[in-house]
Amino acid sequence: MPSEAQAAPDILSVELARIAQDIDSSFDLLLPVPDDPRRPLVEAMRYAAIGGGKRLRPLLLVATAEMHAVDRDTALRVACAIEAIHVYSLIHDDLPCMDDDDMRHGKPTVHRKFDEATAVLAGDALHAFAFEILSDPMTGGGDPFVRAELIYTLAMASGANGMAGGQMMDMMAESSRFDLPTVTRLQQLKTGALLGAAVEMGAILGRVVPEGRTHLRGFARDVGLAFQIADDLLDAEGDEVAAGKALRKDEAAGKETFLSLLGPQRARAQAEMLVEQAISHLASCGAEADILRALARYVVERDR
Amino acid sequence: MPSEAQAAPDILSVELARIAQDIDSSFDLLLPVPDDPRRPLVEAMRYAAIGGGKRLRPLLLVATAEMHAVDRDTALRVACAIEAIHVYSLIHDDLPCMDDDDMRHGKPTVHRKFDEATAVLAGDALHAFAFEILSDPMTGGGDPFVRAELIYTLAMASGANGMAGGQMMDMMAESSRFDLPTVTRLQQLKTGALLGAAVEMGAILGRVVPEGRTHLRGFARDVGLAFQIADDLLDAEGDEVAAGKALRKDEAAGKETFLSLLGPQRARAQAEMLVEQAISHLASCGAEADILRALARYVVERDR
Repeated sequence: MPSEAQAAPDILSVELARIAQDIDSSFDLLLPVPDDPRRPLVEAMRYAAIGGGKRLRPLLLVATAEMHAVDRDTALRVACAIEAIHVYSLIHDDLPCMDDDDMRHGKPTVHRKFDEATAVLAGDALHAFAFEILSDPMTGGGDPFVRAELIYTLAMASGANGMAGGQMMDMMAESSRFDLPTVTRLQQLKTGALLGAAVEMGAILGRVVPEGRTHLRGFARDVGLAFQIADDLLDAEGDEVAAGKALRKDEAAGKETFLSLLGPQRARAQAEMLVEQAISHLASCGAEADILRALARYVVERDR
Repeated sequence: MPSEAQAAPDILSVELARIAQDIDSSFDLLLPVPDDPRRPLVEAMRYAAIGGGKRLRPLLLVATAEMHAVDRDTALRVACAIEAIHVYSLIHDDLPCMDDDDMRHGKPTVHRKFDEATAVLAGDALHAFAFEILSDPMTGGGDPFVRAELIYTLAMASGANGMAGGQMMDMMAESSRFDLPTVTRLQQLKTGALLGAAVEMGAILGRVVPEGRTHLRGFARDVGLAFQIADDLLDAEGDEVAAGKALRKDEAAGKETFLSLLGPQRARAQAEMLVEQAISHLASCGAEADILRALARYVVERDR
C-alpha cells in the first residue's frame, strides 16, 4: 500500500533523526565549555561537532551494536568517538592549505567562523577526545579487552594506513593519473576505512568474534564504495544548497574519480550493484538487520 | 675527584645519547615507507620523528619504567607513542597559521620541507600512530588493563584538558594580560601535562598503583614548571644555532611569561628551587632514581 508507506515516515528517516538528536545531546554533555581561556577551543569543537552531518558512521555503529543486543547508551558513547574522528578530519580537510572550503553542513567552516589556528587545534583536540572517550573506564561496559580492541580499530582506520593515508593519496591524485584500482584503493582508505570501522566497532561491542564479522565486513566494504561513487555523482550533479557545501570540485581539480573513469551511467549502475551486493552479505540476518539494509540503499539515494 | 668526573661522560649524557638512538631506530622500524602514493606522508612523518629533539619525554618514561623493573623494549615502544604525540604537536605548532616557524631541530620545518597540507596530515597521522602503538595487543606486556590506562593517560594529557588546551591558552596570551597563576596553569597544560604523562606512563608500565605515584607526580609537576621557566630564559638569552630554531619570540608576541612576570633573576632562582623540590620528591628512592635526578638538573642547565 504505497499511500500508507508515504504517510508513515520510513524506518530509516526515523533512525536518522533519532541518531542525529542522540549524537547532538551526547556531544553537548561530553563537551562542556570551560570558564577559562580555553573557551574558544571548546566552542570551536562544539561548533563543528553539534548540529550537522548525516551521522552515517554513528548510525552504522549503533545499528550493528543493537543487532547484537548492545545497550543503546553504551553504543552511543562509542559512536561519539568515531564521529569525533570524522568531524576532526572535516575541519582539517576544509583548511585553506587543504581543500580551502568556506561552507560545511550549510554553515561557515571552522576556520572561517573562528580562525585557522583555532581550526587546527580544534581538530587536534577532537582527535584526542575520541581516544579519551574510548579509553574511559566506563566505555565498553568496563571490559578492558573491548576498550583496547575498539581503540586499535579506530586508530588503524584513521592513521597512515587508513583515512590519513587516503587523504594523502587524494592530494597526489591532482598531479597523477590514477587508474581504477588505485582510485578504489584511495577511496577504501579515505572513506571506506572509517565506515568499516563503524560496523566493526559495533560488532566488537556486541562481542562478535573476529571470524563472525566476515559478512559485516563485506557489507561495510561494499557500502563504503557505493557511498563514494554516490559522492562523486553528487559532486557532479548535486545541489549545493541541499549538500550544504561547495560542489563540482573533482573536475576542477583534474582528479580521476569513479565518475571520470566509469562515466555517469556505469558509475550509477556500479553503485546500485554494490548496494545489492552489500545487502546480500546480510542474507543470514533477519529483521534485526533492516536498518543496515535501509542504510545501504540510502547511501546511493541521498541528496547530500 | 672533579678531574675524573670530567673525563668520564656523566650518567645523563650517556642516557640521552642512548635514548636518542633507541627512539630513532624504533621509529625507523615502526614507520616503513609504503611503495604507493602515501609515500610523501610517511616520509614527512619520518622526517619529523627521526633524528631530532632531546627525547626528554621518552627518557622520563623509560627511566621511570626501568626504576620499576620494566623491560627496556616494552618501555621504548610506549615511549615512541608519547614522542609521536610531542612530534605531531611541534609539526602543527610550526604551521604558518600557528607560530609560522621555518626551523626546528636545526633543519627546515615539515611545511617548509614538504608543504602545508602534508604537514597537517603528517601531524594527524602521527597522532593516530601514537594510539595505534598503545592499543596494539603486544603493548604493555599483553595486559589490556595496562593498555587502557596508558591510552587514557596519553589522551587526557594531549587533548583540550591537556596540551591542546594549553596551546589555546597560549594563543589567547597574545591578546590578554595573563597573571602568574594563569601563566602557571597555561604551562601546566601546554608542556606539563605531557611531561607528567611520561612519568605516569612509566609508572603504569611498572604496575605502580595510583596511590604509589604521588611522589612521581610531584616530581613531574616541578620538573615541568622548571622546564618551562628554563625555556623562557632560553628564548630570551639562548643561542639560535644551539637551539636549532628561532628564538626571541615571546617578547615579540607581547606574551606574559614566567620571565616577563618574574624578571630573569627571580625566574632563574625559581627554576633552581623547583629542581631541588622535584628531587626532594624522590627522597624515598635510592640510586635507581639517579637518572631522574640528573634529568631534573639538566632541564634548567641545557642550552637547547
